[in-house]
Amino acid sequence: MADIGARLEEICAGRVLSGDAIGDDYTHDETLGGEPVRPAHVVLPEDADEVAAILKLAAETGTPVTARGSGSGLSGSAVPHPDGILVSFERMNKILEIDTVNHVAVVQPGVTLTELEEATAAVGFVYPVYPGELSASLGGNVNTNAGGMRAIKYGVTRHHVLGLQAALPTGEVIRTGGRFVKASTGYDLTQLIVGSEGTLALVTEAVLKLQPRLAHQATILVPFPDLASVMTAVPKVVGSGLGPLILEYIDALTMGAITYTHDLQLGIPDEIKEKAQAFLVVMLENNSAGRLDEDIETAGELLTELGALDVYSLPGGAARKLVEARENAFYTAKGVGADDIIDTVLPRSSLPEFFTRVLEIAQGNQTLVIGCGHAGDGNVHLAVFQKDPEVRHRVLHELFASGMALGGAISGEHGIGRGKKRHFLELEDPGKIELMRRIKQAFDPQGILNPGVLFD
Amino acid sequence: MADIGARLEEICAGRVLSGDAIGDDYTHDETLGGEPVRPAHVVLPEDADEVAAILKLAAETGTPVTARGSGSGLSGSAVPHPDGILVSFERMNKILEIDTVNHVAVVQPGVTLTELEEATAAVGFVYPVYPGELSASLGGNVNTNAGGMRAIKYGVTRHHVLGLQAALPTGEVIRTGGRFVKASTGYDLTQLIVGSEGTLALVTEAVLKLQPRLAHQATILVPFPDLASVMTAVPKVVGSGLGPLILEYIDALTMGAITYTHDLQLGIPDEIKEKAQAFLVVMLENNSAGRLDEDIETAGELLTELGALDVYSLPGGAARKLVEARENAFYTAKGVGADDIIDTVLPRSSLPEFFTRVLEIAQGNQTLVIGCGHAGDGNVHLAVFQKDPEVRHRVLHELFASGMALGGAISGEHGIGRGKKRHFLELEDPGKIELMRRIKQAFDPQGILNPGVLFD
Ligand SMILES: Cc1cc2nc3c(=O)[nH]c(=O)nc-3n(C[C@H](O)[C@H](O)[C@H](O)COP(=O)(O)OP(=O)(O)OC[C@H]3O[C@@H](n4cnc5c(N)ncnc54)[C@H](O)[C@@H]3O)c2cc1C
Ligand SMILES: Cc1cc2nc3c(=O)[nH]c(=O)nc-3n(C[C@H](O)[C@H](O)[C@H](O)COP(=O)(O)OP(=O)(O)OC[C@H]3O[C@@H](n4cnc5c(N)ncnc54)[C@H](O)[C@@H]3O)c2cc1C
Repeated sequence: MADIGARLEEICAGRVLSGDAIGDDYTHDETLGGEPVRPAHVVLPEDADEVAAILKLAAETGTPVTARGSGSGLSGSAVPHPDGILVSFERMNKILEIDTVNHVAVVQPGVTLTELEEATAAVGFVYPVYPGELSASLGGNVNTNAGGMRAIKYGVTRHHVLGLQAALPTGEVIRTGGRFVKASTGYDLTQLIVGSEGTLALVTEAVLKLQPRLAHQATILVPFPDLASVMTAVPKVVGSGLGPLILEYIDALTMGAITYTHDLQLGIPDEIKEKAQAFLVVMLENNSAGRLDEDIETAGELLTELGALDVYSLPGGAARKLVEARENAFYTAKGVGADDIIDTVLPRSSLPEFFTRVLEIAQGNQTLVIGCGHAGDGNVHLAVFQKDPEVRHRVLHELFASGMALGGAISGEHGIGRGKKRHFLELEDPGKIELMRRIKQAFDPQGILNPGVLFD
Repeated sequence: MADIGARLEEICAGRVLSGDAIGDDYTHDETLGGEPVRPAHVVLPEDADEVAAILKLAAETGTPVTARGSGSGLSGSAVPHPDGILVSFERMNKILEIDTVNHVAVVQPGVTLTELEEATAAVGFVYPVYPGELSASLGGNVNTNAGGMRAIKYGVTRHHVLGLQAALPTGEVIRTGGRFVKASTGYDLTQLIVGSEGTLALVTEAVLKLQPRLAHQATILVPFPDLASVMTAVPKVVGSGLGPLILEYIDALTMGAITYTHDLQLGIPDEIKEKAQAFLVVMLENNSAGRLDEDIETAGELLTELGALDVYSLPGGAARKLVEARENAFYTAKGVGADDIIDTVLPRSSLPEFFTRVLEIAQGNQTLVIGCGHAGDGNVHLAVFQKDPEVRHRVLHELFASGMALGGAISGEHGIGRGKKRHFLELEDPGKIELMRRIKQAFDPQGILNPGVLFD
């Protein structure tokens, strides 16, 4: 491996770390209960040619390569291989262009969501995908197909990646797609790389679709007597044509935990709190303040008809705080001792039945399962409290199996990585797994990219 | 081949055509100048198992298989192989469900856009992708990633395909995606199959995302003194937040041809007609008539500032007719003797430069090139009038090469198929072609699906 370190130095002089010089940060992502792993080398490339050269070296020597953005992932897919190279994109962090004619941003993979938010706001545009962790990199977002609360209106990362530059494990650098929203010119390599968790190619540049930034937003918080009525209300709000920006459910326990840890005052009277078993957070946006007021009014009426206990308009500051607290629900869950987090996605219509199953599975296994989620897109985030790893595996297995039986998939946005791989391989159609393996081989004949992620 | 006919009869009794019993319709699509080819057999399956059995037989005997929807394609990709089997999906034409909770339609591939439009309208939803030919099948739409005028607001077919059932050339039937808008659970097989022109799998069912059907639409027709000012106006309209449903450009010659052939009265005074070198058609939609009126007013003001000669509000009937005439521009071009049609896609910002190049290429080759297109998404439809096949190949080659040099791709929505394959193989990055070939092999190790399409 010393030899590889020296050869990496030739490619990225002064930007290679080996052995003890490797900081702890590089050994893990944010997955609960994941084992940290120190790679043999960390290398910090500055352009696509360097990335390609690293991959050529790795292919020649059969060395595993793992990409790392900000390491905020929740699937363990940025955890390196002990004998491998970790390619950290922290130095490829330039916003190359905010193109206000084609409405795209061209970014290097190490750019963070926070940086992109600032740059787009300055010119009246927005990259409308807001996954909960704004320190995440766009390279990580692309490779996990990150979602977030606003997916209900704008879709997820996949829907905003128009093109990529990527270095293939065979050493070529390709460009896919471009500054346009559609093409029918061969297979869509862009979409194949999106969500591939660093197993197919290393992304060295991304062309991201922007939207005009609308001027006004307003938020209502809507308590319901039970989760079932929230789930019935959701499709009606989506089908109303109001085009909600956020449509998030939070169960009473989770609401308690996040308001408590974030010291949130939402102005809900005690007698409503007592009755409320679930909450819906609805955010609307509009370019016209007048239209927004009207729409919020309409939404409130609609939700009252649908069984809401009341409707609370949240002032800007409180709304922002609540959304932030919801985004940090992961840390809240971690703080109160959750042992794992899952993010199953289901057809909206299956949510009520799924929640019945969740309760049965939790009770049947003496496990606490609480949650919140992107109700509008059927993406349920559940925190699982169960110390015993075997029982926990069984609980997760049963939760995923129930979700899949109801037409869902294991992960809506966090990915499979290492953390959920056993479940993926146990539960997914073997014919599909086999096909995915062959696709993996088409990109990476030697299997150097992120071995152990997705497949064994 | 007699043997294969008999074995197909075992799979689809009474639904196999061979030899002279095969009607002319099965020998071609709508590609200009394409050569009709009669396949050895046409088979009309009724379910996914039959489709899988046909593929198993084909794999066993090394027989080429081509899928056919409605045969309205413009790339020659539904034209069968002379020794092959044509699988026509005309009997798999059931709408299995319009699911108003999850907001999806589940359809068999032979369902036409017209049929889906009727079924969704009945329940207040819409499948918002309107490619110009409503007799086209959803299976064909999925496999060409069909676009259309409303892509500027809603995106193209790709953005509405949430899941598929598909029979693989290796004989398995898989299900991908589902009734949800996002997942991060392995590679996105759905998006890989979309746009693959029947070369990777046969689609036997599709889950399509629906939108609420908004109540009101209004259209303005906006003449401009030249194409360049149209192209400058387009990004401003997109960036305005008005969210146009249609943003279509039509050049003066094309406008003349379509108004003439469709006997359209648009009420534009002669002195404006004389000055107008290009037109923009802008359609907006809203659930509120009042808001729509306001928005049309705002759009008109914006376009006047941007150099429009005038702004004409089109009454519903005239608007519908104009859009229809525009959709049939292909037949108009065919009628007046066009020899080929291309649909290059480019970054919007490159359109003015591209049009300068188009003029140079046309003049340099004594060729007439006229057009219209989806200006909002940079998708330019050009009719090429040039009888000499060699000169025509050169003209197309130069047009595509210019488009690609400006950041574009050969086809925005029609596909590569057989018709544009030579250009694709000549102009596309060989590294990408090689990767696509390996992906093709991952799906179809024996190369039985649509050989001759995309690759040689
Ligand atoms: C508090 C909190 C809230 C969160 N909320 C959300 C949420 O709402 N929605 C959501 O989707 N996720 C959420 N996440 C998860 C996480 O932020 C996302 O998965 C994010 O996309 C990871 O980005 P990253 O830069 O940290 O990637 P990393 O963790 O570094 O890597 C993620 C994956 O991408 C690969 N990768 C990174 N860069 C590249 C590259 N250039 N080329 C190829 N592969 C690459 C890695 O190999 C790995 O497989 C949350 C996490 C936390 C801690
Ligand atoms: C007047 C006119 C206007 C048009 N306007 C537009 C437009 O605005 N936008 C646009 O995008 N296109 C347009 N087209 C082109 C055409 O309508 C589209 O390409 C359409 O998607 C083709 O559908 P089809 O059912 O006719 O498919 P076909 O022509 O039968 O087949 C097209 C491709 O799909 C494959 N295929 C079909 N069914 C299946 C299946 N079940 N499984 C696997 N592969 C399958 C075929 O093998 C072939 O490769 C227009 C055509 C005409 C004639």
